[in-house]
Amino acid sequence: VTISKKTASFIRSLQLKKYRTQEQRFVVEGGKGVVELMGSDFEIDMVAATPSFIEEHEPLLKSRATDVRVSTEARLIQLGSLQSNMHALAVVRMKPNLPPTLDKIDYLVVLDALRDPGNLGTILRACDWYGLTHVVASEDTADLYNPKVVISSMGSFLRVRTFYTNLEQYLMNLNLPIYGMFLEGASVHDFTFDKPCCIVIGNESHGISANLKPFITQSVTIPGYGKAESLNAAMATTVVLDNLRRLEK
Amino acid sequence: VTISKKTASFIRSLQLKKYRTQEQRFVVEGGKGVVELMGSDFEIDMVAATPSFIEEHEPLLKSRATDVRVSTEARLIQLGSLQSNMHALAVVRMKPNLPPTLDKIDYLVVLDALRDPGNLGTILRACDWYGLTHVVASEDTADLYNPKVVISSMGSFLRVRTFYTNLEQYLMNLNLPIYGMFLEGASVHDFTFDKPCCIVIGNESHGISANLKPFITQSVTIPGYGKAESLNAAMATTVVLDNLRRLEK
Repeated sequence: VTISKKTASFIRSLQLKKYRTQEQRFVVEGGKGVVELMGSDFEIDMVAATPSFIEEHEPLLKSRATDVRVSTEARLIQLGSLQSNMHALAVVRMKPNLPPTLDKIDYLVVLDALRDPGNLGTILRACDWYGLTHVVASEDTADLYNPKVVISSMGSFLRVRTFYTNLEQYLMNLNLPIYGMFLEGASVHDFTFDKPCCIVIGNESHGISANLKPFITQSVTIPGYGKAESLNAAMATTVVLDNLRRLEK
Repeated sequence: VTISKKTASFIRSLQLKKYRTQEQRFVVEGGKGVVELMGSDFEIDMVAATPSFIEEHEPLLKSRATDVRVSTEARLIQLGSLQSNMHALAVVRMKPNLPPTLDKIDYLVVLDALRDPGNLGTILRACDWYGLTHVVASEDTADLYNPKVVISSMGSFLRVRTFYTNLEQYLMNLNLPIYGMFLEGASVHDFTFDKPCCIVIGNESHGISANLKPFITQSVTIPGYGKAESLNAAMATTVVLDNLRRLEK
């Protein structure tokens, strides 16, 4: 079965948040991404793929009992956001937006108005690398299901769950030490973090919002040795998580 | 003075490496970038800027005795690669491609076929943050003067000098311990790096080239705790530099 004009236009509409929210569906692009997706617990509506991808992954596709459509590479590129996609694309159901169960969590990353989709994807990848399972994000943070987030997370969005909420209310009721990343504060090279704990990462330009500062137990910073003004939010998150894990040893 | 059609087409041509190499010139975009540039020792041929930018930075512009052209915001966007540029753009001379003087260096980052301009810019920013002054890159690494590198480095390309060369020959003659970042090796959380030393970062997909492996004194790795396959090259570089500085304490 191939893809009808109507289905193609439905898939393309999922590039926009408005339609993703309305349909509660999003798109995963690329052969590697679709294979990883099929190994996850996400519900897949449809896989559009080239004949060679379908042949190679037939058992996996059958085990997922998903609707498989034959496509050309050119069509896959039309349907998605990648400039090159030689294998596959999937239409996937969003998961419900649920708060993390805190008793299983050692470290929780909280994102305050993180706007750049590439940064969000990279942060999910870093969280996954360092074994974190949950992120909490303000409602004005980039959308998890934005194609750029999905792609730059390199599959980590499948393992790291993101909960969008009002951070003021969330932090007010959070029974964990709350560390905030600032340009000034205790050095991550000296400071001993409590475990479990929560680390707040601020907006790329403005840092942590004024209304969240009262909830920060301790400001922490990454010591600089040169003349750069800052590290970007994704680099800072990665460095903090590395320091947290290193301290456990 | 405004910008002639001929000058505009010259500036636009500098988006391409071919013309940058031929003209030995490149473009710096954005008000903040141009201000930082004017504080550096780079030679500036021309600044195109809005009347308000020219008024605000008149003394600095005069002190650089550079050719200043009045421009609109719309024109600045046409001339460069940014989607928004409310202030300025400069045409700048490349610096000669010279090897670093090693006696002043504590840590030297070496990039092997790092292809993504955004990654290169982010690595320069990380090097600058951690006080490194030089990077050595293979000839097939992304071009330092690519607009995306200049922009994503956030001004750090002004302070961190990049030398392009044949890495096989360079490493063969380098009288420093040479550490290579791999997915397996000594953990950066346990390992003690010699100082001074050199750290080789490999290509985004293929890691460090086979022909460079004989020169690696020691493989090092960033320990992972979750299921992500890897960190990206820029994140890995940032984490290694953080560990190097942390170890000095």
